[in-house]
Amino acid sequence: MPSKYSGASACDPASYRALVRPVGARHVEVLDQRALPHAIVTVKLADPEAAAVAIRDMWIRGAPLIGAVGAYGLALALDRDPGDAALANAHEMLDATRPTAVNLRWALNRVRAAVVRLAAHDRADAAWREADAIYAEDQAMNRAIGDHGLELLRKIVRRKGGPVQVMTHCNAGALATCGWGTATAPLFLAHAEGLPVHVWVSETRPRLQGANLTAWEMHRRGLAHTLFADGASALLMRRGEVDLVLVGADRVAGNGDTCNKIGTYDKALAARDNDVPFYVALPSSTLDPALASGDAIPLEARSPDEVLAVTGRDRFGHSTTVAIAPEGTRAVNYAFDVTPARLITGLVTERGIAAADRDALTRLFPERFQ
Amino acid sequence: MPSKYSGASACDPASYRALVRPVGARHVEVLDQRALPHAIVTVKLADPEAAAVAIRDMWIRGAPLIGAVGAYGLALALDRDPGDAALANAHEMLDATRPTAVNLRWALNRVRAAVVRLAAHDRADAAWREADAIYAEDQAMNRAIGDHGLELLRKIVRRKGGPVQVMTHCNAGALATCGWGTATAPLFLAHAEGLPVHVWVSETRPRLQGANLTAWEMHRRGLAHTLFADGASALLMRRGEVDLVLVGADRVAGNGDTCNKIGTYDKALAARDNDVPFYVALPSSTLDPALASGDAIPLEARSPDEVLAVTGRDRFGHSTTVAIAPEGTRAVNYAFDVTPARLITGLVTERGIAAADRDALTRLFPERFQ
Repeated sequence: MPSKYSGASACDPASYRALVRPVGARHVEVLDQRALPHAIVTVKLADPEAAAVAIRDMWIRGAPLIGAVGAYGLALALDRDPGDAALANAHEMLDATRPTAVNLRWALNRVRAAVVRLAAHDRADAAWREADAIYAEDQAMNRAIGDHGLELLRKIVRRKGGPVQVMTHCNAGALATCGWGTATAPLFLAHAEGLPVHVWVSETRPRLQGANLTAWEMHRRGLAHTLFADGASALLMRRGEVDLVLVGADRVAGNGDTCNKIGTYDKALAARDNDVPFYVALPSSTLDPALASGDAIPLEARSPDEVLAVTGRDRFGHSTTVAIAPEGTRAVNYAFDVTPARLITGLVTERGIAAADRDALTRLFPERFQ
Repeated sequence: MPSKYSGASACDPASYRALVRPVGARHVEVLDQRALPHAIVTVKLADPEAAAVAIRDMWIRGAPLIGAVGAYGLALALDRDPGDAALANAHEMLDATRPTAVNLRWALNRVRAAVVRLAAHDRADAAWREADAIYAEDQAMNRAIGDHGLELLRKIVRRKGGPVQVMTHCNAGALATCGWGTATAPLFLAHAEGLPVHVWVSETRPRLQGANLTAWEMHRRGLAHTLFADGASALLMRRGEVDLVLVGADRVAGNGDTCNKIGTYDKALAARDNDVPFYVALPSSTLDPALASGDAIPLEARSPDEVLAVTGRDRFGHSTTVAIAPEGTRAVNYAFDVTPARLITGLVTERGIAAADRDALTRLFPERFQ
């Protein structure tokens, strides 16, 4: 079945995509991920303000996807006004939406660099081309990450002779990227080639991206999976039920320290205590070689309301938010934590698997680590 | 204000109690903890079946409280029929309600031992007396645990000169015991003497006892506290925002391995990685010297529905349950995990603070560790 979407590719069997630019269109469409898993809602982003809101209010999320939507947001801005001031304003507005994922700034800078020396009337087309390139490259990187990660899974299945048990956290899936996802790409490829895989999905409070999004992706693609409360990570590993932890990343410092969804560091500690390999999957757009360590990564603090309440479907099928704490309770809501490189077995990138240290990353990405 | 309750004591300033036996009554009353923090509902338990349901369906919970309610359940059974068969049946029914906390069996065995050699017509009164004694002793143990734990907090305040930051998990509060709570007793005593205390309350998915119960107790007693999602434990410690972790226990093996609410082991790992002292508060009724290690502790697996849904108050104030995962999602719901003794700084008991090992426990409780 030919797709109406320029971004769709034959290697993606599932009938959903987080972000599409209909062929020739001067807008993009995104899945409003706040409605998942209970409803599939597609939203059109036709101006840069809509793109900024979609990022800031988490209609879409996931470091690579944020980058791509940001890139298209800049193209949308240049469609309206290709002048220097408009470019600078849109760049600033989009960059300010979320502080932690480095892919956003990386993509915005890349689009700006592609257009800034052009005459005004050429800028918009060039921005759309650059955003399309970011989109296509992210798909290709997902696929390459998948191939490298798949090798890890194959080895475990060969050794065990049974299903490989992979624990993941939050959503580093197709819904976080333009393609197969980062942490999920090896899982989807393994499943596609008939390798037995079982995925442990942590619910990922407070926003429940594991329960809402990763469980939905696994269900949609037919992978065996089991949901668990975040606090059960260490016990599951202790019981020997996990062969490998595989998570995504929002920013990786030059030394391999990895910033990812809150709760990732806890899982890395549990993996270390139970001799479970702990891998991070990321496209190189997530690398921030300028940072000496993870200590300098800004950690977004979001509204306490996300901790104080939970949104789901009531028995009538309506989206409902329920309060879980006494009225007036104070809550803290850091969206990310930093896992020290010493706890990470390897970084699965589009060029292969690197140890989580500056030397190994420099060998793999010399042009980024000069 | 004189209390109508035999169990109330002058050292407890708050106007709630998880379990009371009205003076002279042949029934008990419990707070239905499923309604907290949104409503205060008291339920009368007038027969052993009601006591069993209250334990099994978690109207009440907390290892020491389960023990006391079990003891009263046996007294209720003997009021109805003091015969050997009825005693055995009620013991079995109550013992089967929840498998993990050892206090339940400890209390049931204690009541049975107190009555089994008596003539039938003396048994019921003796059972009520023994249950009352368990209740009163639990209160006294709470208070003694509080005094020993308070010393730890005082030392930190003296050293820091600022508020002591204590992280706790689940609810080891007054709602889990007959008195001041176990992990909370030092906090309440510190607050009562004007020591600056701030409590980090983990929400404790899936049943949210932290958000529902501990936050409510802190609010009710006026202690500064902040709620956080379980996955933020390690980050908060990493940021230097925690001076001490203090949790309760459901069963402590002879070697100090500690079974407690799911997510406790994760916190102990985070504490170790960040040099934060990790203490467990428990009455000696929670000790199980017969177990060589925590590996032999049966870990209750509860309904997956607790993971797949969340109950809270909707905007109309109604108790509502919302589904958070796609329909048909499989979930696992272990209610407890085991923290290895090597990760535990100390066990705060009614007789003082012991290292988490058999030698230290034997010195403190020689009559239990023969």
